[in-house]
Amino acid sequence: MRYLTAGESHGKYLAGILEGFPAGVRVTKQYIAAQLKRRRQAPGRSARQAIETDSFEVVSGIQKEITTGAPITVLIKNIKVFNELPFSSVPRPGHADLAGMLKYDTLNAALIRERASARETAARVALGSFALRLNELLGVCINSRIVSLGGLNEITAQSAAVELKRARAAGDTLGGVFEITAENLPAGLGNFNQWDAKLTSRMAAALMSVNGVKGFELGGGFKLATLSGLAAAKTPELSGGLDGGVTNGRALVMRCAIKPVPGLKAGTPSINLKTFKNTEAVSKTSDTTAVFAAAVIAEHAAALTLAGALLEKFGGDTFEEIKQRVKLWRLKTGKKLAYGCAVSMPMAVRRPAKR
Amino acid sequence: MRYLTAGESHGKYLAGILEGFPAGVRVTKQYIAAQLKRRRQAPGRSARQAIETDSFEVVSGIQKEITTGAPITVLIKNIKVFNELPFSSVPRPGHADLAGMLKYDTLNAALIRERASARETAARVALGSFALRLNELLGVCINSRIVSLGGLNEITAQSAAVELKRARAAGDTLGGVFEITAENLPAGLGNFNQWDAKLTSRMAAALMSVNGVKGFELGGGFKLATLSGLAAAKTPELSGGLDGGVTNGRALVMRCAIKPVPGLKAGTPSINLKTFKNTEAVSKTSDTTAVFAAAVIAEHAAALTLAGALLEKFGGDTFEEIKQRVKLWRLKTGKKLAYGCAVSMPMAVRRPAKR
Amino acid sequence: MRYLTAGESHGKYLAGILEGFPAGVRVTKQYIAAQLKRRRQAPGRSARQAIETDSFEVVSGIQKEITTGAPITVLIKNIKVFNELPFSSVPRPGHADLAGMLKYDTLNAALIRERASARETAARVALGSFALRLNELLGVCINSRIVSLGGLNEITAQSAAVELKRARAAGDTLGGVFEITAENLPAGLGNFNQWDAKLTSRMAAALMSVNGVKGFELGGGFKLATLSGLAAAKTPELSGGLDGGVTNGRALVMRCAIKPVPGLKAGTPSINLKTFKNTEAVSKTSDTTAVFAAAVIAEHAAALTLAGALLEKFGGDTFEEIKQRVKLWRLKTGKKLAYGCAVSMPMAVRRPAKR
Amino acid sequence: MRYLTAGESHGKYLAGILEGFPAGVRVTKQYIAAQLKRRRQAPGRSARQAIETDSFEVVSGIQKEITTGAPITVLIKNIKVFNELPFSSVPRPGHADLAGMLKYDTLNAALIRERASARETAARVALGSFALRLNELLGVCINSRIVSLGGLNEITAQSAAVELKRARAAGDTLGGVFEITAENLPAGLGNFNQWDAKLTSRMAAALMSVNGVKGFELGGGFKLATLSGLAAAKTPELSGGLDGGVTNGRALVMRCAIKPVPGLKAGTPSINLKTFKNTEAVSKTSDTTAVFAAAVIAEHAAALTLAGALLEKFGGDTFEEIKQRVKLWRLKTGKKLAYGCAVSMPMAVRRPAKR
Repeated sequence: MRYLTAGESHGKYLAGILEGFPAGVRVTKQYIAAQLKRRRQAPGRSARQAIETDSFEVVSGIQKEITTGAPITVLIKNIKVFNELPFSSVPRPGHADLAGMLKYDTLNAALIRERASARETAARVALGSFALRLNELLGVCINSRIVSLGGLNEITAQSAAVELKRARAAGDTLGGVFEITAENLPAGLGNFNQWDAKLTSRMAAALMSVNGVKGFELGGGFKLATLSGLAAAKTPELSGGLDGGVTNGRALVMRCAIKPVPGLKAGTPSINLKTFKNTEAVSKTSDTTAVFAAAVIAEHAAALTLAGALLEKFGGDTFEEIKQRVKLWRLKTGKKLAYGCAVSMPMAVRRPAKR
Repeated sequence: MRYLTAGESHGKYLAGILEGFPAGVRVTKQYIAAQLKRRRQAPGRSARQAIETDSFEVVSGIQKEITTGAPITVLIKNIKVFNELPFSSVPRPGHADLAGMLKYDTLNAALIRERASARETAARVALGSFALRLNELLGVCINSRIVSLGGLNEITAQSAAVELKRARAAGDTLGGVFEITAENLPAGLGNFNQWDAKLTSRMAAALMSVNGVKGFELGGGFKLATLSGLAAAKTPELSGGLDGGVTNGRALVMRCAIKPVPGLKAGTPSINLKTFKNTEAVSKTSDTTAVFAAAVIAEHAAALTLAGALLEKFGGDTFEEIKQRVKLWRLKTGKKLAYGCAVSMPMAVRRPAKR
Repeated sequence: MRYLTAGESHGKYLAGILEGFPAGVRVTKQYIAAQLKRRRQAPGRSARQAIETDSFEVVSGIQKEITTGAPITVLIKNIKVFNELPFSSVPRPGHADLAGMLKYDTLNAALIRERASARETAARVALGSFALRLNELLGVCINSRIVSLGGLNEITAQSAAVELKRARAAGDTLGGVFEITAENLPAGLGNFNQWDAKLTSRMAAALMSVNGVKGFELGGGFKLATLSGLAAAKTPELSGGLDGGVTNGRALVMRCAIKPVPGLKAGTPSINLKTFKNTEAVSKTSDTTAVFAAAVIAEHAAALTLAGALLEKFGGDTFEEIKQRVKLWRLKTGKKLAYGCAVSMPMAVRRPAKR
Repeated sequence: MRYLTAGESHGKYLAGILEGFPAGVRVTKQYIAAQLKRRRQAPGRSARQAIETDSFEVVSGIQKEITTGAPITVLIKNIKVFNELPFSSVPRPGHADLAGMLKYDTLNAALIRERASARETAARVALGSFALRLNELLGVCINSRIVSLGGLNEITAQSAAVELKRARAAGDTLGGVFEITAENLPAGLGNFNQWDAKLTSRMAAALMSVNGVKGFELGGGFKLATLSGLAAAKTPELSGGLDGGVTNGRALVMRCAIKPVPGLKAGTPSINLKTFKNTEAVSKTSDTTAVFAAAVIAEHAAALTLAGALLEKFGGDTFEEIKQRVKLWRLKTGKKLAYGCAVSMPMAVRRPAKR
């Protein structure tokens, strides 16, 4: 399974092609729309986002909402389309502007922003919906939750709203931490034989690619670095579900750190790369935090990677074929897994996914 | 550039093949030996490791210590070779044993341990030596340092020795955090166009693949998640050298969390997967911490990924060709880079690599 | 550089995403339209094709007809869109129907035909236009010509027209052979170090993937198999431009065999896979030969592979950067190349591309 | 599944690493030795080859001759090892010398020859032995036969010997054509969704990568190009076992053209690239034809590609798991396949492999 996304923030469409996805998976338009809505209307996004919806089409790979095995194409319409790209030779600190302007040898930061923008992630969520659904149908539950916001660790919907309102009023932005879990994964996915076959590496790559993510933890993560071996041995759940880069039957538990949105309405000191004069870069992005949206995107990025790992282990071109193989595998590994986990490594509680 | 490693802990050789490495890079046997020694004799490893050396040969891809462009093969002799693999149906918690036994449907954990062991990283260091040298010769300095050990944050060689001695005496082990930096990287490496082209993802994958790593941070990492946007804007160095997954002219700064070595001499509760009876798993690994060794390995893993990113941007089959292109690129981007970084984003001090 | 295509014959769009293409290459809408027209209106195609044009849009990766370095998306509208897919459980011999119905466990051959159809190649030509243009701008001329049609070896536009008319009238179809050449390629592209790095393998894969191609020759091809070494040594041009899978400064010369279009209006004996009763499969495809169209498609498939090989050798994110490196390389290798080719291996005449 | 080979003709070892091969496949040392012997002692090779044997070791990935799932390393000792590489600035026409000298900017052709030599294929045969055995154990029979030698089409062991003797006496060399078949392949391997997923492309790449191969045909190949559609419809076996790049239940039939060995004892006109003076290149290679050896190598190259395609369709980490899935698949597709092939497309006779 592989995929490419394309499209600019103010081009006609964002586009994505997902190749190698099995036939026979029912993914409704409503399901995809709901995922896109979760991303778009996540708390902390601008007022405008909250009222708009993503208008999209699945133009290939599907017949009557059931995948055919052919590559899936999703197109998402951009609401605002630039006929003429604006010009700005002032890179915004904290964004890809400077790096991109140098890389592509251009004085127009707008050319860079158009693609480097997190708008791209809408295409990833649309493609990821298929992977998320495949995981669900195979009994794998991928969820996310916000662990902290702007340094506050006990976050409720209410306290988050208060915090976001406060920051917005101050012209400020917030970072935070989210957690991604995948429960009921078959044991034995991923491989320790090569560095790039480890599921650890692949999950890290998938999640670190989400815009704004600056840190990644598996299980105990940085906390594990402070524990002694004797203490760690008593908390096997801190493995985070992977040993040697292979699923061990426990829930996969990962956390990501999101930096505060760098675009500040007040402007940040920068330089005009044409004139080399000092100036201010002004960012119009009005999101107050990316944490909630990034958690949704990360679920989809994780789902794509896990779907790939499932297809590696179980092969197959149709959902029925894969489902049958997963079922047999679970029967085969069940007893050893239960015992193995139960004694020294109490299994994480497995809740069915509710979506 | 791509590479594969192979070999078991108690097989005849560890092996590695590095493909796509340019011709004309001088890498002496001493250089590679020094890198292997850094890994093997890192503080915290067992007494036995400290006195042994890795006996290795470069059997292809090199003529008179200069690379030829042909694939490079390194063979590292194992000192202890099993004629008959031992048998143990008791998975050691905290290791890949259980996951691997299920994956490969075997009752013998020894089969899994042989490959899942961190011994594999010797081959990665040997291949990584070539990449590290290429980076050096192109002026890119990759370094590591230990940030914390067992929760202690102010670590000197002396305090580390005391701490390790204490843990060893208690039959305990320690985790820790190390930092990897790469200075003087040309701007514009990596790409924001696709999730898997971002250097962020690729560095995370490379470093999370090092055995024992449970967490990864780029620049400010998890700390950035607690800062407000206004505060973060004042500390541009927290970007860690990548914006949008592209090098921005600053030093690349990454940190990894290492869990405490899971093998405990005292034994850990486990189960015999043959009889399903409770028992104790005993680990003979006598390393007290993997932090120091992992930092060395991570330098090499980082070097391999960065060498790949350099070859992508500059192409080329010979060192002279690449060197010339890098030089021209630095001339071309120098002024914009200096201004861009200087005003709003003060450049990290660049120390020459000393090795 | 990598790309994916998607889309069904009677879906809304064919789509393609081209990733990793450099910035700064001017590719006009007219240029792409001309390439699509060459494919669509190639001799031997049905009367309907000859009057229609492909309606397409480049919806990303381009600004004012100049590439930006961002992934390029092309959408091609299908004229006939199925709201409801027809049903047929009768696989057409000579097509992917049976293989696909088994693979995807479906009784509806229409599901398979929609994607396995050569209609897909329109998307490849659209993406290939960018690669073809890049080759051109770097002085590499990719051309094709028909070598034989239905067994006739001396083909002129006139004789081909006569032959096609005759076959059409007889309800028959024709195969043939085309030649692809790439002139003025820099020496040293591709690599002999690994099987999959050889340009020989990559060109063969690219051309054999074109629908209907059943044979591939490099240079002398099957004729070389009949020559003795002494005879072959006198005809160095039969190398076809690659030695050891690396460009040797001569023109790249390849030939492909195209089978006759398998769909016959008269019907072919088949079986109904639902009822297991004998029946006839009727194919509505009314093309008389695919040779002319396949030659156009093959130019684009070749261009994509060669663009990839150029980017490997020269790296770079912008056209200017690449152009400069290619120029320096040609200066550097020119004398040796000229001498080397001149003495024992007279260089193929290099005609400038005219398009 | 992926693999890399390494090693020079006169280095200490040829090496190969095969990654992703399943556990539980019994491959004896005798089996590998027999495959290496088939390659080395193929008719047409020099007298020296005929008496020597390849001394090899499998140093990883195997326990008591059964694969473990870990990467497999094979080392083959070279008999003649250069302490000092000879120097020659005279490229041999028909070899990779000139292309390689330019690519790697070296005046020493010996540096190029060491790796570009067909000696590399010994490593591929050694790794391919594992793939060949996996195919066999899954009931897939891969075979080769010589179709023509030096233009003679009716070749027996006797007539070949006569022909080779004659050529050798004349200081000449011969090319030829061999056929590769794979019988009893499960239907549905490969994919028509993307150009590089088609098994057609992948087989072509694998076989065209074998040194000396200049042409490739699937099924009817170039002959199909001369048939009319009506004629071709009566010979469905000319499909060669793939429709749309997917196995269709018939035998896979491919042919490759091998050029005559270019190294001629008499010498060929060349140029000294240091002095730019005309001279003669002398080749010491004393093989009279590569056809027989190449056929053996091609079996292994084909086996590696087919093993990869099988693993894609069936997934799995152990042989038992894969075998069970293949068995179920054959049961499931059997009836449709038999009917589908029987009526319009009479199945190729399936002989069991005898080796």
